[in-house]
Amino acid sequence: MPTTLKEIAEVCGVTVSTVSNVLNDKPKVSAEKKRQILKVVEEMGYQPNYFAQGIRKTKKRIIGIITEDIMDFATVNMVETIMAYLENNSYRSLLLNMRMYDKWDNQWYDDNTKIVESSRPLFQQIMSVKADGFIYIAGHCRKIHCIPENIDVPGIVLYGISADERYPSVVLDDEKGGYEVTKYIIDKGFKEFGIISGKSDNMHTNRRLLGIQKAMFDAGIPFNPELVREGDWKRTGGYENTQYLLDKGVKCIFCMNDLMAAGVYDYLYDHGLEVKKDISVMGYDDREISDYMRPRLSTYDLNHSGLAKKCAEMMIEMLGEPETKIYNNAHIAKIAGRLIERQSI
Amino acid sequence: MPTTLKEIAEVCGVTVSTVSNVLNDKPKVSAEKKRQILKVVEEMGYQPNYFAQGIRKTKKRIIGIITEDIMDFATVNMVETIMAYLENNSYRSLLLNMRMYDKWDNQWYDDNTKIVESSRPLFQQIMSVKADGFIYIAGHCRKIHCIPENIDVPGIVLYGISADERYPSVVLDDEKGGYEVTKYIIDKGFKEFGIISGKSDNMHTNRRLLGIQKAMFDAGIPFNPELVREGDWKRTGGYENTQYLLDKGVKCIFCMNDLMAAGVYDYLYDHGLEVKKDISVMGYDDREISDYMRPRLSTYDLNHSGLAKKCAEMMIEMLGEPETKIYNNAHIAKIAGRLIERQSI
Repeated sequence: MPTTLKEIAEVCGVTVSTVSNVLNDKPKVSAEKKRQILKVVEEMGYQPNYFAQGIRKTKKRIIGIITEDIMDFATVNMVETIMAYLENNSYRSLLLNMRMYDKWDNQWYDDNTKIVESSRPLFQQIMSVKADGFIYIAGHCRKIHCIPENIDVPGIVLYGISADERYPSVVLDDEKGGYEVTKYIIDKGFKEFGIISGKSDNMHTNRRLLGIQKAMFDAGIPFNPELVREGDWKRTGGYENTQYLLDKGVKCIFCMNDLMAAGVYDYLYDHGLEVKKDISVMGYDDREISDYMRPRLSTYDLNHSGLAKKCAEMMIEMLGEPETKIYNNAHIAKIAGRLIERQSI
Repeated sequence: MPTTLKEIAEVCGVTVSTVSNVLNDKPKVSAEKKRQILKVVEEMGYQPNYFAQGIRKTKKRIIGIITEDIMDFATVNMVETIMAYLENNSYRSLLLNMRMYDKWDNQWYDDNTKIVESSRPLFQQIMSVKADGFIYIAGHCRKIHCIPENIDVPGIVLYGISADERYPSVVLDDEKGGYEVTKYIIDKGFKEFGIISGKSDNMHTNRRLLGIQKAMFDAGIPFNPELVREGDWKRTGGYENTQYLLDKGVKCIFCMNDLMAAGVYDYLYDHGLEVKKDISVMGYDDREISDYMRPRLSTYDLNHSGLAKKCAEMMIEMLGEPETKIYNNAHIAKIAGRLIERQSI
């Protein structure tokens, strides 16, 4: 059995992150501690796996991609970008799908037993084909706890936050997105506006809300929590919350996804009101549908391709081309999207 | 080298299909011929691969799925259904993606060199993980010629027609679709209507057109080729062909996909005309966008899940559970869709 990073960390009484910072020559660790750790590394005969990867003669040039759900609209776009980037770097990708939504609807985000049960055999599969690395694509942003201990290749968590010290993460910059959309709405002249949010226990919801609050603060506008309605990310959730906001007198409604914005459109249409002329509507996600709604929906492109490209770039770096980089879970790359101005506001 | 089905066929002077019909005990072959063939099978010591599969002790319970392009809206839906069905039968799926659209735009359908170049390493990958079978999902319906000779596991071509004698196919019933849509339009009172078709050299286009013509014939309505405009499957193709059809005086336009129908909507909107009140519009595909257009677009659901379920069922049969069936390329399962009535006609 080769010595592991974890064993070194235990002997030194530091975290795995600290050991890998030292091995990766990052400036975060004191010179004294660094010397101690390197001594233990030498004594215990540790061969960093990632470095070993870089020089492994039998490199398969295969990356395993595990998706929580390929049907998620974000996932398939990210898979495409990752595969393209890896292929351009002479790596093949192989995709394994957990199919969580079909199996459990939305009742699995906090149930690590279900997640481990569905992911474990796929990780085993990836190891059995001797993949050089893996990318785990979450279907929903949250802490990811399911990566097996015995995985010994570089990996990245995409669209979720790695709870595992060994692996970095790439996520949406939801806070920036909320900020930019809000600034746009304010610049359009709306001093107050209604918000139909996602589920309140959701990381995307909370980060976007934080961005909204910051942008309002920067503009000197008081934030009124009564103008925030909790939606469910679905078309019906937009529909059902519109009247409440109309009663509050708002002239603009920002929905945290395009499906809920479509529900607002439906409600306004059914009640003889016109989008933009009577009530402005702002979406989020830039799903395909947003360009087919009438008037065309202004929204916020999540930049999935940017997210996926960053992830693939990091994977190539971790694989040691041209030189091996070690990222651990202290590394969380946040990728911003961009505002898409159409006709609804 | 084991004897192959092809060698038996050559010795007997019959097609591979005939040999496999005999081995599968199908009633299509005369008793005399059957006896002759079975004699050769015995003499040459042929061991059918599929049977061998069925009793293979080291079954991996993995099916390889090769997609020409996962970004095709039909493909990801079919992948989901296949994975679900296989998982319920205790098979895992592993997906490999050729990414043809990104690499070649639409310039690859007839270029078998490009197709072979992109698919060959993926077939090799599937063999190297010792998958028990494969499903090849075409991105575009046409004859599929790229399955390597040395593949010796059951396989199915989905969304295309297998040119390889060893493998069956599962495709859309485009002719029936064209027929059903046309009957619906006629029943709505339109004796003539414009058609914006797909590309004229396309199998979907031609089969749908055949169905349209049959339905018109059955209703005693003369088919006027001047009312058919060749589109390009894109939104712009709908937009650009609308005026021509309006000039012909039609009150209903049938588009062979929803994207072109959206282009017709755009044109009518830009020219102060109302969908349905002035001009009825019919789509095809039942893409997500069709339910978000205003008025909601009536269309035709391709039934991808039905198509994929049929394919997965056949795969399980070919794998010998409960008993091995042999399908060859004489077997083309055609799956019909269903009309989705909304508000545009």
